[in-house]
Formats: sequence, C-alpha cells, structure tokens
Amino acid sequence: MSRTILAAVMVSTILMSQIEAQAQPSMSLMPQPAHAQLGNGQLLIGPTFSVAITGQKEPRLQRAVELFLTQLGQQIGMPPIDMLMTNSTGATLVIQCAAGTKSVQESGENESYRLEITNSGAKLSAPTTLGVMRGLQTFLQLVTTTSEGFAAPAIVIDDSPRFAWRGLMIDVGRHFIPLDILKRNLDGMAAVKLNVFHWHLSENQGFRVESKTFPKLHELGSDGLYYTQSEVRELIAYARERGIRVVPEFDMPGHSTAWFVGYPELASAPGPYEIERKWGVFDPAMDPTREETYKFLDKFVGEMAGLFPDQFFHIGGDEVNGKQWDANPKIQAFMRAHDLKDNGDLQAYFNKRVQQIVSKHGKTMLGWDEILRPDLPNSIVIQSWRGPDSLAQAAKLGYRGLLSSGFYVDLMWSAERHYLTEPMSGNAADLTQDEQKRILGGEACMWAEYVSPENIDSRIWPRTAAIAERLWSLQDVRDVNSMYQRMEEESLRLEWLGLTHNSSYLPMLRRIAGNDDISALKDLADVLEPVKNYTREQTATEPATSAKPLNRVVDAVRPESATARQFADSVNTLVAGSSRPGTEERVRHLLNRWRDNQLELQPLFEKSLFLKEVAPISQNLSALGTSGLAALDYLDRGEKAPAAWVTQQLAIVEQAKKPQAQLLIMVAPGVERLIQASAGQLATSPLPAK
Amino acid sequence: MSRTILAAVMVSTILMSQIEAQAQPSMSLMPQPAHAQLGNGQLLIGPTFSVAITGQKEPRLQRAVELFLTQLGQQIGMPPIDMLMTNSTGATLVIQCAAGTKSVQESGENESYRLEITNSGAKLSAPTTLGVMRGLQTFLQLVTTTSEGFAAPAIVIDDSPRFAWRGLMIDVGRHFIPLDILKRNLDGMAAVKLNVFHWHLSENQGFRVESKTFPKLHELGSDGLYYTQSEVRELIAYARERGIRVVPEFDMPGHSTAWFVGYPELASAPGPYEIERKWGVFDPAMDPTREETYKFLDKFVGEMAGLFPDQFFHIGGDEVNGKQWDANPKIQAFMRAHDLKDNGDLQAYFNKRVQQIVSKHGKTMLGWDEILRPDLPNSIVIQSWRGPDSLAQAAKLGYRGLLSSGFYVDLMWSAERHYLTEPMSGNAADLTQDEQKRILGGEACMWAEYVSPENIDSRIWPRTAAIAERLWSLQDVRDVNSMYQRMEEESLRLEWLGLTHNSSYLPMLRRIAGNDDISALKDLADVLEPVKNYTREQTATEPATSAKPLNRVVDAVRPESATARQFADSVNTLVAGSSRPGTEERVRHLLNRWRDNQLELQPLFEKSLFLKEVAPISQNLSALGTSGLAALDYLDRGEKAPAAWVTQQLAIVEQAKKPQAQLLIMVAPGVERLIQASAGQLATSPLPAK
Repeated sequence: MSRTILAAVMVSTILMSQIEAQAQPSMSLMPQPAHAQLGNGQLLIGPTFSVAITGQKEPRLQRAVELFLTQLGQQIGMPPIDMLMTNSTGATLVIQCAAGTKSVQESGENESYRLEITNSGAKLSAPTTLGVMRGLQTFLQLVTTTSEGFAAPAIVIDDSPRFAWRGLMIDVGRHFIPLDILKRNLDGMAAVKLNVFHWHLSENQGFRVESKTFPKLHELGSDGLYYTQSEVRELIAYARERGIRVVPEFDMPGHSTAWFVGYPELASAPGPYEIERKWGVFDPAMDPTREETYKFLDKFVGEMAGLFPDQFFHIGGDEVNGKQWDANPKIQAFMRAHDLKDNGDLQAYFNKRVQQIVSKHGKTMLGWDEILRPDLPNSIVIQSWRGPDSLAQAAKLGYRGLLSSGFYVDLMWSAERHYLTEPMSGNAADLTQDEQKRILGGEACMWAEYVSPENIDSRIWPRTAAIAERLWSLQDVRDVNSMYQRMEEESLRLEWLGLTHNSSYLPMLRRIAGNDDISALKDLADVLEPVKNYTREQTATEPATSAKPLNRVVDAVRPESATARQFADSVNTLVAGSSRPGTEERVRHLLNRWRDNQLELQPLFEKSLFLKEVAPISQNLSALGTSGLAALDYLDRGEKAPAAWVTQQLAIVEQAKKPQAQLLIMVAPGVERLIQASAGQLATSPLPAK
Repeated sequence: MSRTILAAVMVSTILMSQIEAQAQPSMSLMPQPAHAQLGNGQLLIGPTFSVAITGQKEPRLQRAVELFLTQLGQQIGMPPIDMLMTNSTGATLVIQCAAGTKSVQESGENESYRLEITNSGAKLSAPTTLGVMRGLQTFLQLVTTTSEGFAAPAIVIDDSPRFAWRGLMIDVGRHFIPLDILKRNLDGMAAVKLNVFHWHLSENQGFRVESKTFPKLHELGSDGLYYTQSEVRELIAYARERGIRVVPEFDMPGHSTAWFVGYPELASAPGPYEIERKWGVFDPAMDPTREETYKFLDKFVGEMAGLFPDQFFHIGGDEVNGKQWDANPKIQAFMRAHDLKDNGDLQAYFNKRVQQIVSKHGKTMLGWDEILRPDLPNSIVIQSWRGPDSLAQAAKLGYRGLLSSGFYVDLMWSAERHYLTEPMSGNAADLTQDEQKRILGGEACMWAEYVSPENIDSRIWPRTAAIAERLWSLQDVRDVNSMYQRMEEESLRLEWLGLTHNSSYLPMLRRIAGNDDISALKDLADVLEPVKNYTREQTATEPATSAKPLNRVVDAVRPESATARQFADSVNTLVAGSSRPGTEERVRHLLNRWRDNQLELQPLFEKSLFLKEVAPISQNLSALGTSGLAALDYLDRGEKAPAAWVTQQLAIVEQAKKPQAQLLIMVAPGVERLIQASAGQLATSPLPAK
C-alpha cells in the first residue's frame, strides 16, 4: 500500500471517530451507573473550580474531597493548590452529605449517590460519605478534553451498587508486593468503586506480617519481606480514605509451611521446615489434634484482630491434602477417639475450633469453599472458588457467600469472560429473594505465582475494571463491545493514578531484546497472550519456583491482546461482507507486519537469550501473515481457494495455535477464518468468543 | 515509498546496528570512568548472583549493597530475595572496602574505586563506602542482555571524580514537588554519581519546611504544601543511603515574600503580604537595619542547622532589587549612619551579619554570586550563575566556588550545550593550581516556574546525566556523539528507578488531544522544543502565575528533540554526499510524515482547546515537509533548484523558525540546509550546533 493511501486511511479513521465523538457528549463511565440521563451543555473545569461541603463534614469526607482535588489536578494537569474548598454554595461542585460513616467501615453501608451536572455547576448528594466517594469517582470519569478546555457533560446520575461486597484479593505470600504498589492498586480499586481489599498474607512461600507475639513467624518465614504492623496500619488508613475495607487472610491449616519454619511444633509432622520455593499443594498442615495449636491460634488471632479492624477474618481453609495427617499415628488415634471419619471431618473439627477463637475475638469468620460444613454457625461467610452453584448451595443452607470463581485474574482469561461471569446464574438464579441476599458479592483474585512488583499491575488492570462493573452495575449491563470501549478508556485514566500496567510494557520488552529498537518485538508481543488456566505450570520445562525471575516474554505480554481482539472484529466484518472503508487496509497492514516480523526480528534472536524462545512463534506468525494475505487475495478476486491450498494453510494455523514458550498467538483464529472464508466455508456466526 | 521498501530499510537498519553491537562488547557508561580496560569474556548475572562484603562493614555499606541488589533485581527482572549477601569470598561480587565514612558526609570524601570483572567473578575495592557506592552504580550500568542471559563484560575500571561537588538543585518554592518525586530524582542522581542535592526551600511563592520556632512560616507561607521536619529527615536519610549530601537553601534577604505573610515585621515595608503568584524579581526584602531581623534569623538558622546536618548552609542572596530599601527613610538613615554607600553595601552588611549567625551555628555559608564581597571571610562558598570568569575572580580572592551558569536545565538548552560548559574554561583556565582547587565543582539547577510533579523528571532527565559526566569525568571527555549515545542508554536505564521522563510523555499528549490515538500529535510534538532561555515569560500573552496549569503542548514536549537531532545528522551526511544506505529513505519518510501531519491533525484541532494553539505550527511543519521533499527531488535529479523557488522556500523556513505557542520547530534548520543544498549553496561545514 502506498504511503498516500495509508495516510488517507488514517485520516478517514480519524474523521470518523471525530464525527462519532461529536454526535453525543463524551461519556465513558465504568462501572455503568444504575441510571444516567444526559442533558444539554457541559460544565467547564478550570483553575477557578471550587468545591463546597454542606451538610455533615466528618474528617473522612474532607479528606475524600482533598484526594478528589489531587486526582482531578493530576488528570487535567493542574496543581491542586489552584482549586479551593469553600463553604459557599456558589462553588462549582456542591457536596451535600447527610451522614457520616461508621468508625470501622461495614459491609452494606449505604454507597448510593446522586450527581447532577449543569453548565453552571454540579451537585453531589449522598446519604453517607461513602456515597460521596463513589460519586466523586464518577465525576472524575466524566471530565474530558473538549474544544473549550476540560469539561464534564450536563447529566443527572442516580447510582448505587448491586452488591455490597466488591473486592480484590492480592496474594502477597507467593511473591511479596511492596506497600507502595498495593497503595496504587487501592487507588485503582477506588476508581472503579471496589470496596474490599482482601489481603492474602500467609502462604507456604511466605508469612508477610510482623507478629509481636510470635516474632519467628515473620523473622524466619518471610526472607525479610514482610509488612511491619505500622505499615499495615498505614495501608488500612490509606484504604479507609478511599472507602475500602481491608480483610486479612491467614491461611490454615494448610498453605502454612512458612509458619512452621519458626514454629515447627504447629505442624503435623516433625520439622525442621524451610520456606517453600516451589508452587503447588504441599503436605505440611497444622496439627488439629493438639490443644497447643489452639492456644497458639488464640493468641495469634487475638493479636491480628487488634491490628485489623475489619469485622471479617479470613482463615483460608483451602487445599489440605491430608498426607501429614494420614502419616501421623497420634492424629489417627485422635480421629478414631473423636469419631472423625475422614480428613474432611478432621478439618471441620479444626474449623469449628478456629471459628470459636475468631468469634471470641469479636470477628466473623470467612473462608474458602472447603470450610462449609453444616456444623459451623450461619454467621460465617463462604468465598467460592467453585462457582455460583456452590454459592447457591451455601445460601440455601443459610450461609452468606462471595463469588471468586470466574474472577481469578491470574488465569489470563479475557475481560469478556470475567465480565460475563454472573454471580446470580446457575442454581443461584433459582434462589428465593431472601436466599439471594446471602450472596454478598464477589472478589477478583490475584494469585501470585507469576507476578512481580513489575508486572502485577498489568495482571490486575484493566481487566479488574470489568469485574468491578459486574459487581456494581445492574445485572442486565452485559454489552461486551461497550465494556471493552469503556475499559480501554478507563485503562488510560488509571495511568494518572500511577498504575504501571501500560508503562511497564515497553521497558520489559527492551530488556528482553537487549536493544532500544523494539518495533518488531512489539509487533509480535502485541498479538501474544500467556497460556491460560494452569497450563504454565503444566508445560514448564523445569519446575517453576519463587526464585525464578519473571523476565520472559510470557511475563511481559498482556493477559489479553487488544490487537488480536480488534483484528478478529475486523475479520468478522470483512467476511460478513459488512466492512466499512478502511477495514481491509487495516487487516492487510497487520498481516503484512506479521509476515515481515520474522525477517526483522531474526537478527535480534542471537543477541538475547530471552528472545530465542520466541523464535518459533515469530516464524509461525510470519506464516500466518502470508496465509492471511493469500486468503484475502482470493477473496478480493472472488475466486475460491483450492482445497489443497486450504488444507495446507489450515495445517499452518493448527501449528500456530500450539502453545510455544507458554505463549499463544491470539490472531490464529482470525487468520483461520479468513482462510475458511476464502474457501467458501463462510460461517454465518462471528468468531467464537474466547 | 512502498511498504516493501520501507520494511527493507528497517531491516537493514537493524542488521547494521546488530553488526556494530557484536563488534565490541556492550559498554555504555555514564559518566565515563577515568580509566577502563575491556578484557575478554563476560560475567553472567543470574539467580545465583551473590555479593560478599569483606573488610569494614558499616551499616551504610550493608544498606548500599541491599539497594544495589534491589536495583539489579529491578533492572534484570529478578526479585532481590534471589540474590544473596554472603561472607564468602567465593561470591560473584566481592566487595573490599577499607574504611567507613563520616557520620555526616563531607565534601571531598574519597569516592574512588576499582572494579575488576572477569568471566568468573567481580571484585570491587574502594577506600571508603562512598567509593563502593559509585562502583556499584558502574556495575549496574555494565549489565546488559546478551545471548547467554544478563551479563557484564570482563573489564578493569579505575575511577575517581574530577570534582568533589557534583550537585542538582531543585527549586520546590515556585512549584511544590512531593517527597516521593524528590526521592526518585535522588535515585537518578546516584545513578550518574551526583553527590549533592541542593534543596531550594524558600521563595516568594512558597516557604516549604515546617518550622517549629516560627510556625507561621509554613502555615501561612506554603498553601499547606510543605515538608514536615520528619519528612525532611526521611529525605536526608534517603540521600545518605545513596551517598548524597543535602544542602538546604533559604533565600534571603530577597526572594522572601512567603516569609512575610506570617512575619511582616521582617520586611522593609509594612505589610500585609500575600504569597506571590507571579514570576519575576519582586520588591519585598528583609530589613537589614533592624536587630530584630537578626534575632529572628539567629533562632531560625539555629533550628534549621539542627535539622540539616550538612556542613553547608545556603543563604541565596540573589536578585535584591532594593526598591523597598530605597523607599524606607529609616533604612536610608541607617545607611548614612553606617557609611553604606549603596544597596550593594547594605546587602554586604546583611550578609556579614548572617554569615556570623551561620558560623555561630557551626555551618559554612554558601550563596549566589552576589554575596561575594571582600569583607566576608574566605570560608564562604560562592555559587556562580554568572560563569567561569566570576568563579575565577572569586578563586583569586581566595574563595571557593561552584559553577551553575551553563547548567540551568530550566532554560531548555540541548544536552550538548550543557555538556560543553567547562568550569575550568575562560579565566578559570589561567588560575594557579592552588586557585583551581577552590573550584569545587558545579550544580545543575532546576528552577521551577514551569515544572510540575508531572513534567519535572523530563526537565531534569536525561540532560542532567550529561552535566554529571562533565563534573565527574576527565576534562578531555568531550565527544558529543558518544555522549548522546550513552545518554540515551542511560535515559532508558533511569526508567527502572521509577523516573517518568519518558513515560509521562504519551499520557500528557493524550490529555491534550482528548483522544487515545495520538500518532499525528506525537509526530508533531517529537520535533518541537519549548522556547529557550527566558523567552516563555517574555512572549506570554498573559502573565504566567503559579496558578496556571502546566498542561499545554509546551509543557509536554521534551527540552531537546531527539528526532530533530537525528534528522540534522542524516541531512548532514546526505548533503555531504557521505550518506549510508537508508539515509535518504529515512529523511524522506520523516518529511512525508511532516507534510501529512496537518491533514491528519486538523480534525482534532476542533476537539481540543489545548491543540488549537499548535495548529499554525502543524501548518508550518507541513510546509517544511513539502519543501524538503521538493529539495530532495532536485538533489536526486542533480538539477539545481531555481532561484525564485529557493527564495520562496527559505521564506517558508523563516516563517517556521518563528516561535509559536512558545514552541520551536527544531527541524527547520535541517530543511533549510536541504533547500540550500538543492540550490547548489552547499556549505562544507555541517549544520551549526545548537
């Protein structure tokens, strides 16, 4: 394609988006509010912007407005000093807040708000400070660049969340994540109205909180990588300023090797123990038969209950393989003596004892699916990694529950797949209204086998914004295209908060290439995704451990390739015969780049160990580019591709679909569809969703 | 140009750089060490990397090694946990450090080191912990991606600094810069071996440190934007861990309006005073004739001398316009009574009194050029904004001095211009050896009229790395091409420290465009630079103030355009007839993009207020693109361009050279040269250096 045509294509794209943008005031909210009505005109946001707080003025509200002004300042490039908090009702934004909030944030506190913006001013009213916080985030999302400067459109929004519990869990046990990185993720959570930070603090690979009662927990169980109690308090205060609760999790009786390094007597087999370096489910488990175990836990839970003010205390409770129990004659004798038929019974006995301890210290126990046994009181909450059916089962038994199945962001699923995970589906849809109320919400889970401080943001964002919308917005908000469009906008906005999900990408690629010019590597990496689910473990050539650096291509590429998604869209419109001008040029442009990728990248393979493993992938991508271009030529000529050729090309596609270096070429299905179309095998349905 | 040719051009470029890279082991050090000898082979850096400290082990040294491991981990994508500090001499890197450091770092402490790397291990020896710190930074710069993984080349380096005082001044008075941003800049300083952070803490526009003795200083003089004393101590400790001294500056008797908001009695005219919002030199100045002024300063300096441990105390002393003194009859009477002939004499009297106070509190006074008067003791140090001649004059009089003239990074000069600023030039070159010793070094100065937390990194980096090399490396290290090549490498390395000089660019452009697709805007912004020196103030359509947002194109573009520099290089080789394959294609590719820029950008102008002002610039750039392409066509045809056409095109260039929206199109001279060449006006010298 000549430069001139390419330029014309680009211009027409710009013109088109320009026209679309002018057709309606810009509005890209995520999560979607319950009700929004656009008006006429817009409110200019400039250096004379001011905020007034009327009604109650608890310090948390004042602080929320300060934070809002800082974020608004970052977003529009204006120092916060220039924007004033006043008491005047003539302020640009008037906040009317009826009541303050609880001294410790509770699940279910009112978070609703009403935001009215006209071209002369804005009013945010809410029953509580929490509602104001949510409304201020909506306001920030409404501010865009316009021909008159920064502005928010005239609008009336009435909004409140669908679920009270909207969380993000971060596992800091497997890989330690420093405090400042957690803080910026809390900023991201607040931006999409999540309200629970679930802090997975202990694992086989690390115990991450300073314990003054049992100092060997963090001293021997953390490699020195732990949070001091003062840092914990700092994070909790930071979260509170953003309307976020902090729920600690200390996983027991399994997932607890790191505890046993300092306190081997807690385990069901004699030590000594070392911090676990591998990933997986391991044998060590607490000894549920010794009274000393409960004495220890009583003191420990007491200390942590004082440190973490939240009402809920997560005890994990998942994945006990029972091998240490089976092998310990004393434990076997105890089980016989107490009529505990199997390890499930033994763990239920343990959970019951722990629940009494948690309850004694004023907390409500929360745990993973496995803790659900009818002899535990209805007050406990079940977090389900199994799915809506198990939630429904719990709800029928009278237990409250949270959905995390479908929200595991470490599995590298598409945002669409997370987005369409519905807590009220399956058996949950058939629950009575009272039973449904027991489903409190859900949590995105960031398990940390393969995340480092460098790439964790890119594993959490922007996909967690789609989960946040599922949990906040109405059940019928399910338009995937709209979600992607808004999620991409939100992804850019999240950069103002310091999140590095976008900015860490190119530096990682440069390090991999050992070269500053990474245009060819970027073309390749842009269409790759890490393998899904637990395939990375299963296909590793040597066992992965916590000591393994996370600096390979699989650690740098995004969990979901936007290029591949857009390519699939273009191919779909193309083969359906409904493409707009420019679509074919765009598709050809990409196919050309992929075809040439191998040639451009080859000289770098010999220069970098980290590139070598993707050489076959680059080769496969080149082959896909060539196949796709030939298929397009057939389509353009209106000529049916020969069967032999089609067979050959589909074999190339099959080859390209195979995981290599734990990576997938995500544009293979799109090319496959072009080939099928060229063969006259036009399907009427679009490409299957991931 | 067709896609295929373009791809071929790209490939040949890659091949070329590949061949160059293999010809010699990769080594890109900045600043250049005093002596380096490359050996054969390389040392692999992997998960088994370990460090041993032999010799003395002061906590500062241990901490330096911890920081080194953290930074190495960031740089190669490996958690620091995986690398061990051992006591074994079999460690990968053995550190042999003879002596500890002073409890308060002093100017002139030994910073030399010797680094020996073979393919089996590395040894870093130094007389002090400071030398180890410098050597560890050199080690980090040596680690690159290779075909075997990360590695450092076999090498022997003997290194020590040319000047003892190598500083960066940051003005936090005009715009407040939060602590975390200062911290990452300290990381950047340490990376290029700078050792003094000069903290310009008070200005007409803000007093930025908490004072417990005179709390109205920060309470009324800072808009709430100040550092608490605990934050100051935190920053000093942070700097010390990186071998950096912290020198505070409290500017007096001028530049002090912010003091007078809380304490109007200090001024030479009755108040009340308000925090200054405009930029410039203002009338308010302390009253040098009242004893109460010195009583206040005695207590104040006493408090600050306790807070800041460094030996030096900067009193500013610059730019007193004397108007308040002229207008105050009491001050005039005092001057007559004390035989002070002019305001210079009066300020000298003030300085002498302040020097006695500073000295009484155990500190050495430092001030700008103006404080130099023969009646002050030789112990004071002069910081020169006037140039090497004024330094030489001071040295002859027995005073020590620092050069800052030529190192003002706010003036938007090229790195080359800063780099070639030589402290020992002019009259300083003729000083005796003893006199030369009085020139302690220099400081880059970041004055903050036009910097915000968002763009300050891009104003400081990477150009300050060139200044750091001037101050560390030997005087004859002056190869500008080598400097640019290494500075660009260093610029990318600085990203691992969290500096945002690169990553803040695209988000700022997106905000300006109000659009996610900013390819056309980036093409434009890539060739623009802000106007130089003080032109921004002088050409502002309305007076700039501290309340003015810094979100325009001029705030986003880089101080120095790499594209323009590379374009000028290509044009030079082209018109000299010595171009390599691909040069013309690259030049044509750029000219094409510029020609088409206006067409692509136009639709966005109407969408964003912030783009509108660059519309004429885009138009000029398009015209330059068209001119340049036509000139190239003449050159290609070997045809002399007609005189009338040349005159017309040069008029276009002149038009394009005019500042617009406080921006300069930096490729205008390159296009001019193409036109001149096409007219047969080939000069034999390359384009003039900026």
